[in-house]
Amino acid sequence: MQTLSENRCFGGMQGVYKHGSNACECDMTFGLYLPPQAALGPVPILWYLSGLTCTHENAMVKAGVQAHAAAHGMAVVFPDTSPRGDGVTDDEAYDLGQGAGFYVNATQEPWAPNFSMWDYVANELPLLLEAHFPVDAARQTITGHSMGGHGALTLAMGLPGRFASASAFAPIANPSASDWGRKQLAAYLGPDESVWADHDSTILMRTKGFDGPVLVDQGSEDQFLDLLKPQVLAEAMAARRQEGSFRMQKGYDHSYFFVSSFMGDHVAFHARALGLS
Amino acid sequence: MQTLSENRCFGGMQGVYKHGSNACECDMTFGLYLPPQAALGPVPILWYLSGLTCTHENAMVKAGVQAHAAAHGMAVVFPDTSPRGDGVTDDEAYDLGQGAGFYVNATQEPWAPNFSMWDYVANELPLLLEAHFPVDAARQTITGHSMGGHGALTLAMGLPGRFASASAFAPIANPSASDWGRKQLAAYLGPDESVWADHDSTILMRTKGFDGPVLVDQGSEDQFLDLLKPQVLAEAMAARRQEGSFRMQKGYDHSYFFVSSFMGDHVAFHARALGLS
Repeated sequence: MQTLSENRCFGGMQGVYKHGSNACECDMTFGLYLPPQAALGPVPILWYLSGLTCTHENAMVKAGVQAHAAAHGMAVVFPDTSPRGDGVTDDEAYDLGQGAGFYVNATQEPWAPNFSMWDYVANELPLLLEAHFPVDAARQTITGHSMGGHGALTLAMGLPGRFASASAFAPIANPSASDWGRKQLAAYLGPDESVWADHDSTILMRTKGFDGPVLVDQGSEDQFLDLLKPQVLAEAMAARRQEGSFRMQKGYDHSYFFVSSFMGDHVAFHARALGLS
Repeated sequence: MQTLSENRCFGGMQGVYKHGSNACECDMTFGLYLPPQAALGPVPILWYLSGLTCTHENAMVKAGVQAHAAAHGMAVVFPDTSPRGDGVTDDEAYDLGQGAGFYVNATQEPWAPNFSMWDYVANELPLLLEAHFPVDAARQTITGHSMGGHGALTLAMGLPGRFASASAFAPIANPSASDWGRKQLAAYLGPDESVWADHDSTILMRTKGFDGPVLVDQGSEDQFLDLLKPQVLAEAMAARRQEGSFRMQKGYDHSYFFVSSFMGDHVAFHARALGLS
């Protein structure tokens, strides 16, 4: 593993690292914020999954999460959103291929060799983190924005017992029924929609729910409301009697100005679930 | 004046606006954060001046200042760092011309027609803000990073009574004696070094000081310490008996990870100077 950068931040360290990934069969880059408390022993992990077109870097510089992570003593992991590089298949559309992994394991050509972001986030990266950094994999939480909110909720419901809590900012809530989803799930997983169900937060919420608290924030002026479909997730959460909150934030759009505005709430929510505060 | 974007942020609004500038004889773009309190009446202004290569945007998305401005009820202005555009003189070096205005009024060709960033920040933009937004020009404070820290300190000392308080992150503290300064002051102001003195924080601190509190933060691992020369400013502040603090922050570098880590302290410092907290 190679250190690309390390910057002191809120008394801890914001690092960027590169490593060869078995899941994605390419080099992968991720960000990791370690709070000051990591100097004393392993700290809990908050996963932050990013949205379409993002890399590991967007949230790391724009979400303002380090201040809150330092206050609560949590590490924050910022994975990339897809495999990348010259040898990795891409598409000219911004919402397919590199930058648009959708947190699934692709079974279809030409995506199958590299596009295994589920395995990467669920299995490979946690082991790498535990091996190299003072983090405690027994205490994990997860959040994300847009496509990353979709990833956070589907991973949380798909891996019972893994995460103490799950949250999302403006998640792609029902990809099976959205142009942000149908195209990608068909490309990566094939035309059989029954296999898409494990990657649709609304369907997962209807069928199984999450064994911990859930927090979802959505801006009322989000320019992508038609693609995100928050109302069906809100309905499913209420129907499932899911512990947690779905919050409509008046006047906010889809940007990181929205994400950063409520990041403090989300980190505090996860800290409470972990018994840190 | 043209609105380029407006995003809800921490209950207020992060806007970006473009206007024709008389001082710079070109279109200029600036960011303005208005806190929620601006809905009730005019709010004080915190100026944030950015560093070399930056535009209005860097601090707006990376400094985490809006959270603190909202908490204290202060507007934050993010001017650009120079005139810009096809008709504006530039240089192939990153540290001269566009992106490197150094907050002076150029008197030398070919810079004189456009490079009047002192007049722009000191005179033109404040009037524009008062005319169009609920801000109170009687209550102003100023900060900045690197070249912008230089700008903040020189404007504060050069305009007695204008700013209630002044702060800086890793300022170019003694440009008359630095490769970040001698080249630019010579290009913009000519070879007579006596006219550079009004644009050198250390010299201004030695000769007149500031009529309010000053806060300077500097990272001990800053990769540009040789160019910034913090020690001479620290000496000048102490010799002048300048009210305020010079803080050496262990382990921090020159990045926005450093700036964001201490932004809360700076906004609280300015809020206290304004009697807001």
